[in-house]
Amino acid sequence: MRASRYLVATKKETPSDAVVISHQLMLRAGMIRKLASGLYTWMPTGLRVLRKVEQIVREEMNRAGCQEVLMPVVQPAEIWEESGRWQQYGPELLRLQDRHNNPFCLGPTHEEVITDLIRNEISSYRQLPANFYQIQTKFRDEIRPRFGVMRAREFTMKDAYSFHTTQDCLQQTYDQMHTAYCKVFDRIGLDYRPVLADTGSIGGSTSHEFHVLAESGEDDIAFSSESRYAANVELAEAIAPAGERPAPAAELAEVHTPGQKTIADVCAFLGEEAAGSVKSLIVLGEADEEGQQPLVALILRGDHELNELKAEKLPGIASPLEFAPEARIAEELGCGIGSLGPIGLQIPMVIDRSAAHLADFTCGANKDDYHYTGANWGRDAEAQRIEDIRNVEAGDPSPDGKGTLEIKRGIEVGHIFQLGDKYSKALNASVLNEQGKDTIMTMGCYGIGVSRIVAAAIEQNHDDAGIIWPQAIAPFQLALVPINIQKSDAVREKCEALYEQLTAAGYDVLLMDEPKARLGVMLADTELMGIPHRLVIGDRGLEKGTVEYKGRRDAESTDVAAGDVEAFILEKLNNQ
Amino acid sequence: MRASRYLVATKKETPSDAVVISHQLMLRAGMIRKLASGLYTWMPTGLRVLRKVEQIVREEMNRAGCQEVLMPVVQPAEIWEESGRWQQYGPELLRLQDRHNNPFCLGPTHEEVITDLIRNEISSYRQLPANFYQIQTKFRDEIRPRFGVMRAREFTMKDAYSFHTTQDCLQQTYDQMHTAYCKVFDRIGLDYRPVLADTGSIGGSTSHEFHVLAESGEDDIAFSSESRYAANVELAEAIAPAGERPAPAAELAEVHTPGQKTIADVCAFLGEEAAGSVKSLIVLGEADEEGQQPLVALILRGDHELNELKAEKLPGIASPLEFAPEARIAEELGCGIGSLGPIGLQIPMVIDRSAAHLADFTCGANKDDYHYTGANWGRDAEAQRIEDIRNVEAGDPSPDGKGTLEIKRGIEVGHIFQLGDKYSKALNASVLNEQGKDTIMTMGCYGIGVSRIVAAAIEQNHDDAGIIWPQAIAPFQLALVPINIQKSDAVREKCEALYEQLTAAGYDVLLMDEPKARLGVMLADTELMGIPHRLVIGDRGLEKGTVEYKGRRDAESTDVAAGDVEAFILEKLNNQ
Repeated sequence: MRASRYLVATKKETPSDAVVISHQLMLRAGMIRKLASGLYTWMPTGLRVLRKVEQIVREEMNRAGCQEVLMPVVQPAEIWEESGRWQQYGPELLRLQDRHNNPFCLGPTHEEVITDLIRNEISSYRQLPANFYQIQTKFRDEIRPRFGVMRAREFTMKDAYSFHTTQDCLQQTYDQMHTAYCKVFDRIGLDYRPVLADTGSIGGSTSHEFHVLAESGEDDIAFSSESRYAANVELAEAIAPAGERPAPAAELAEVHTPGQKTIADVCAFLGEEAAGSVKSLIVLGEADEEGQQPLVALILRGDHELNELKAEKLPGIASPLEFAPEARIAEELGCGIGSLGPIGLQIPMVIDRSAAHLADFTCGANKDDYHYTGANWGRDAEAQRIEDIRNVEAGDPSPDGKGTLEIKRGIEVGHIFQLGDKYSKALNASVLNEQGKDTIMTMGCYGIGVSRIVAAAIEQNHDDAGIIWPQAIAPFQLALVPINIQKSDAVREKCEALYEQLTAAGYDVLLMDEPKARLGVMLADTELMGIPHRLVIGDRGLEKGTVEYKGRRDAESTDVAAGDVEAFILEKLNNQ
Repeated sequence: MRASRYLVATKKETPSDAVVISHQLMLRAGMIRKLASGLYTWMPTGLRVLRKVEQIVREEMNRAGCQEVLMPVVQPAEIWEESGRWQQYGPELLRLQDRHNNPFCLGPTHEEVITDLIRNEISSYRQLPANFYQIQTKFRDEIRPRFGVMRAREFTMKDAYSFHTTQDCLQQTYDQMHTAYCKVFDRIGLDYRPVLADTGSIGGSTSHEFHVLAESGEDDIAFSSESRYAANVELAEAIAPAGERPAPAAELAEVHTPGQKTIADVCAFLGEEAAGSVKSLIVLGEADEEGQQPLVALILRGDHELNELKAEKLPGIASPLEFAPEARIAEELGCGIGSLGPIGLQIPMVIDRSAAHLADFTCGANKDDYHYTGANWGRDAEAQRIEDIRNVEAGDPSPDGKGTLEIKRGIEVGHIFQLGDKYSKALNASVLNEQGKDTIMTMGCYGIGVSRIVAAAIEQNHDDAGIIWPQAIAPFQLALVPINIQKSDAVREKCEALYEQLTAAGYDVLLMDEPKARLGVMLADTELMGIPHRLVIGDRGLEKGTVEYKGRRDAESTDVAAGDVEAFILEKLNNQ
């Protein structure tokens, strides 16, 4: 591409409304422009990257035996009513009416459409497994679109859906897709992790997320220091501390703690470590037959964090998790929330594994402004129900028994699910099995946030000068920067020859041929745009027989013999 | 692709709700499935064709210097209010509200979005001309979606928009795009014509449509038998008959024509040719200052058809054209519409060129149940205002003076416009010109109906057995049909070897490897799917050293030496 015929559209200023670095750099590098909240136009440079990501995804899906289809963006309400999601889905589902007042929605996902299609097209187990994907514009009416294309309302997604008659078959396809996803992110050149994940509202059992590691990520991921174990913190198991609980050594003592409400305050007041105390959180239990929800206490070590997802999955606890109102706690338990504790508490308790391992601990006395020190399970309170209800922390032992956990932040760019029969059952999608009997199919679903990958790659790969593209998805692989192209025949000829040769060979080259462009601006633009390789060609160099090469991550540029530059740059383009 | 891992989804029955052949064949060949009225899922076979069309369009747009972008499908009402189209556009524009009740629409076209983008990004004449395109899902809420993807509500379109400071520059880009469009349709392998067209509601001056010739087309196209002249019939000029008008030879005579209302009835009753008569149509004139619309008579030869577009463009005639109510005609002109004529008519007349050339003609006498014969211009009525207000007909002289016109039906698959400043003025999209002065830009816009091309190609290329794809857009270029693949090692090995070799070389091959498929069904499927080349490989042939080749248009299959088949088929794949 010649810059003189291309909308480079770089900007010097950092746009004030862009918070994360990828959003800032995508605007500054001329990749995207905002049309309205959460709606972006992909400019030529941005689209080049997006299409390369798409193509890698497409190739790996095809290789995994997944068949490409294209379903409508606009979907009739009818099938969403059949699945039950028309009622369940919140306002993120953009609903609309056509000219005949028939209800439709803009597809945020396509389980209903594909299940409806397949129930009509596939009738026998012999046609299974079958796996279909599309790369398509999706719409979710986010309440607060943010971070540019990272959380936009309109975005490009690859969504795939597989159909099976047995769990074994689903597991096999699921494993193939897991492998294909790894190939996609490997080829793009990202530092990522597949992690165990919660299945959330989409339903199903087994699930993995694929996270690009970056400090700006919205998720916490736990990794083993010594194995391949990785899980979203919301799912990672906190295993019980090793060994027996120490025997009681201290006497139980009631202490006056006037005005100390939080566990941190109490421990500071008493001169103790939070890790030697327990805190008590009161939540609502599952409703009984009359719709009454009893109170349940969750007991955690003072320094630990409740994992709401783990808690709400436990029998007897309301899901989604709901904290008890303070007034009800005061009325039923006789004290404020800052003075609660397990000793003498008259409601069911769930004790976290780590809290249950403490001896001689501090806790609330169920009496305002009083706490106990030297409390012990068994002797002072019964530790009947012990569960894992906390978030793992850095330094915790890995649940697979190998090494300790580290916590890093990640950006979710892929998610695969074993859906089971949630949609196929609702839409009655069945086939005849080997015995000639109608069987509801089992499904998997598999998503990749194609446009989000572009932003995530930048979050992971940038410096003060701008973006640093992995070569596989760079908008251009090489920038050719001439000095004085309009005055020097030698410079122009050398640039044109290189440009023609490399372009004909299929490389993406940006020739900075604007006659009035200043060198400093061109150099800054190539770095801002993240082009992996750059050659600067000027008269002074050509006179001594050299051109200047700089890789985007190099600190300094190198002189290359002008006669060898084709071979030199071809090696760079092919090897990196 | 192996059929055993592919959703072939062919159907024997012709779907009852599909009227045109392309719709029927796309359903039967497993290319599309209907989700809801005007909403289709592209199945694997259909999408393969669609993507090939897209890629040809993309390559030719890039070659023409057009830059690819991707604009949002969902557009804010704001910019449509700025252009005035929020009010003007009818119910085909699907309007919706987001969760915050802000008004949006689904983009049927993107003039507003691109003009808004470019007014912010381009500030100097030095950055022009600039030309941007996208290949994108569009939505138009057709009142009566029909003919499958030919007139769907959601469809794939290539739309491009160019920006200029001068008409010369616009003309140059327009010409380049005209050439690029021809390349697209040439490469796809369609019999098409670029034709002069009306600019319609989109505005602007010069315009060409690109039509695929097919009997099922919705447009009539006029072509010269001896030149490249071609125009939509609604635009094609009907030139005046050659020579002088013959001198009057007959006397004017009033004849009684009881109950004869239409021109056909009258001529039959009088034993005359319709071509020797004139008919008078009464329409409303332009409103005067008080809003009154006078009556205007349009006089045409009895056998000619009024061209409403031509008439409504004339000064003094209301646009859109509106016929006068019969009651008003009776009241003001004193007779019914079946007895009107130019002699003694007291309202302004517009006389078609052909009608004005008649001598001794028959016409209404402006008195119920009476007509004149032997009427003559000049002697009996004044032929003051002579214009072209009729549709051209087959056999008319071509307006460029070369040959005569033929009329064929066409399917519009492309349309290019010189928009002028309609949108750039409304959105105040200006740049600094060479003199440093603000200038409103001039625009062109260029559309290709990508998904419609798929249907149009079928309308033009099919037979009783199914689709006949042009090779450039065939879902598969070659079908490999084994006989008894599960029983014969020789057959399986030959098929696998050919399949692996050709697939590795980048050809799209469908290997019909389903173990239980019957030969007749496989052969019918490959014909229905329109695969250009087919090899049938069976033991009987292999024993005598042959395989069977059949091109999709061939009447009979040919035996090819099994040892030469690779070379034979490669030549077919590369040359056709």
